[in-house]
Amino acid sequence: MRLATYEDGLNRSFGILTAGGIIDLANRLDVPDMETMLAEGLLEKALGFASAQPEVRHFRLLKPLERPGKCFCIGRNYPGRMSGPDTMPLYLFQRVPDSFSGPEEPLLRPPESTQFDYEAEIVVVIGTAGRRIPRERALDHVAGYMLANDGSLRDWTRREMGDVTAGKNFCRSGSLGPWITTRTAVGDGPFHLITRVNGEVRQDDSTDRMLCPVDKIISYISTFTALAPGDIILTGTPAGAGAGFDPPRWLKAGDVVEIEATGLGVLRNIVSDEPPPPA
Amino acid sequence: MRLATYEDGLNRSFGILTAGGIIDLANRLDVPDMETMLAEGLLEKALGFASAQPEVRHFRLLKPLERPGKCFCIGRNYPGRMSGPDTMPLYLFQRVPDSFSGPEEPLLRPPESTQFDYEAEIVVVIGTAGRRIPRERALDHVAGYMLANDGSLRDWTRREMGDVTAGKNFCRSGSLGPWITTRTAVGDGPFHLITRVNGEVRQDDSTDRMLCPVDKIISYISTFTALAPGDIILTGTPAGAGAGFDPPRWLKAGDVVEIEATGLGVLRNIVSDEPPPPA
Repeated sequence: MRLATYEDGLNRSFGILTAGGIIDLANRLDVPDMETMLAEGLLEKALGFASAQPEVRHFRLLKPLERPGKCFCIGRNYPGRMSGPDTMPLYLFQRVPDSFSGPEEPLLRPPESTQFDYEAEIVVVIGTAGRRIPRERALDHVAGYMLANDGSLRDWTRREMGDVTAGKNFCRSGSLGPWITTRTAVGDGPFHLITRVNGEVRQDDSTDRMLCPVDKIISYISTFTALAPGDIILTGTPAGAGAGFDPPRWLKAGDVVEIEATGLGVLRNIVSDEPPPPA
Repeated sequence: MRLATYEDGLNRSFGILTAGGIIDLANRLDVPDMETMLAEGLLEKALGFASAQPEVRHFRLLKPLERPGKCFCIGRNYPGRMSGPDTMPLYLFQRVPDSFSGPEEPLLRPPESTQFDYEAEIVVVIGTAGRRIPRERALDHVAGYMLANDGSLRDWTRREMGDVTAGKNFCRSGSLGPWITTRTAVGDGPFHLITRVNGEVRQDDSTDRMLCPVDKIISYISTFTALAPGDIILTGTPAGAGAGFDPPRWLKAGDVVEIEATGLGVLRNIVSDEPPPPA
C-alpha cells in the first residue's frame, strides 16, 4: 500500500495511492493527516480501505510527512563513500522538517552556496513506539519506507569538524517522497537505489550493502531516544555524490534529480536557484 | 516578566510567575500553552496581564516549552572550553525535545553510560519569525531567555568524529527552565552564568565572554533555516564541565546540579540512575 499526502484544489489530505487515483483516508479515518494516523495507530485500519473505490483523480503529491517527528540521518553507511572509519558507532546528525521539499517541488540552491549536492537515501518511517528496541524486533517498529534526497551544501558542511548541521539544513535543500510504501507491501528490501541527474546515473547501489543495516540502526538510535510513530531515519547514501568526482559536479539551476528504488517509486525534483533575500 | 509552564493538581497550564503566585494565561489568552502563545504573537498581550492578581498558589513548575520548535545548540563558545579552533563558522548540533527534563525533575543517567556531565547554558527563545536576519536586528527576534543544562554522555559523544548526536540526546539527560524571562524584563545580558554541583562552583563565566555573541548566532543560524516563535538556541557552555578535570568528575546518582544566571533564576536537578530496561 502506498500512502500519499496530496492537495486536490484547495484541500490538503492524505490517502491510499492506487493506479486509478487516491482513496482518501482523512474522511474514512477521521484524522487530518498522515502524522495523526500513524500516531493513533490507525495504519492497520487504513489497510482495510485498500480495495475501496478511489475518488480523488486530480491531485498533486505533497511531502508525505509535513511534520515528521524526530529526524535522524546516518552518514557513511555504504562502501566507498568516504575515507573515514566504516564502523559502529554510527555517524548521526539531524535535519529539521523544512529542510525538505516534496516530490516535484523545487530543490533550492541558496545564494550562499556554490556546492549543492544530492544524496539518495532510503528513509525508514517509524510506525510503533519503542525505546531500547532489540535488533531482532526492530523491523516490527517500521511502518514503511520512502525516499529522500539528503541534499547538502558542501561548502557549509565542515567535515574537518564533523559538523554538518548547517550544510544539511538549508531550507528545502533536500526532499522526501514521493509516498510511503508500507512494509506490508514492500518488505524490508533489499532496495536497489539509484540517482540520476539529467538522466545520467550517478549513484547505483543496494541496501544489502549497507554497513549498518536498518534493524541495527533502529536498535542503536533507540538506545538513547524513544522512537515514536512518524519519526524518520535517513539511512545514508551510496558512493557517487557530486563531491566525489574530480572535479566535483555540483548541482545547478534546471538540473533534474531523480532518486529511485525498487518498490518505492521515483522522487523527482528540479534544482532552482533561491532568489537572493529582499534588500 | 517570568513566563512559566506549571501543573496545578490535574491541570497543566502556563502563566506569569510572580512572588505571590501565578497569573494564569491559558484562560486569559484562550490558548492551551506557551508554544501557542508565542506562535500566535500574543506575548505583548500577555504583558498586559502582568499586574493582575495571581490566582494560582499551589503549583509545580514544568519545562517551559514541552514542544520547542527547532533546537540548535552551539559548541565551543567560551574561552578555555576546548582546544579546537574558537572561530566561525559555529559548531552546531541539535537536541530532541525529550532529551530535556524540567526544573526539579530528575536528570537521568542511563545504564549505558558512566560519563554523565553537566553543561550550563543560556537559552535564547525566539519570539518573532525570520530568515536571513541581519545581525543588527537579530535581538528583536528574541522573546526571552532561560537556562539549560546541556547534559552530555561523554562516552557517547565522539569528538574525534565531531558527532555528538547520540551523547547529547539521551532521554532527559539535560534540562530546561526554570521559566522564560522576557527580554523586556531582563534585557540581553550580560548574564553571569554559574554551575554548582552539590554546592561547589564548577562553572563561572559571563555571557559577555562568548566567542560568538547571541546576535551573531541568530544571524548565522537564520542564514540556512527560518527561525520561528518557540524555537530555541542553546548558546554554549563555559569551561568547567566535569570532563575537563583530571581525573574527570562525572555526575552520579544523588548529585544536585544547580545552574544559575543573573535574572534568569536557578535551574536545579538531581541526578538519578535510570533503571535498566525491563528484561
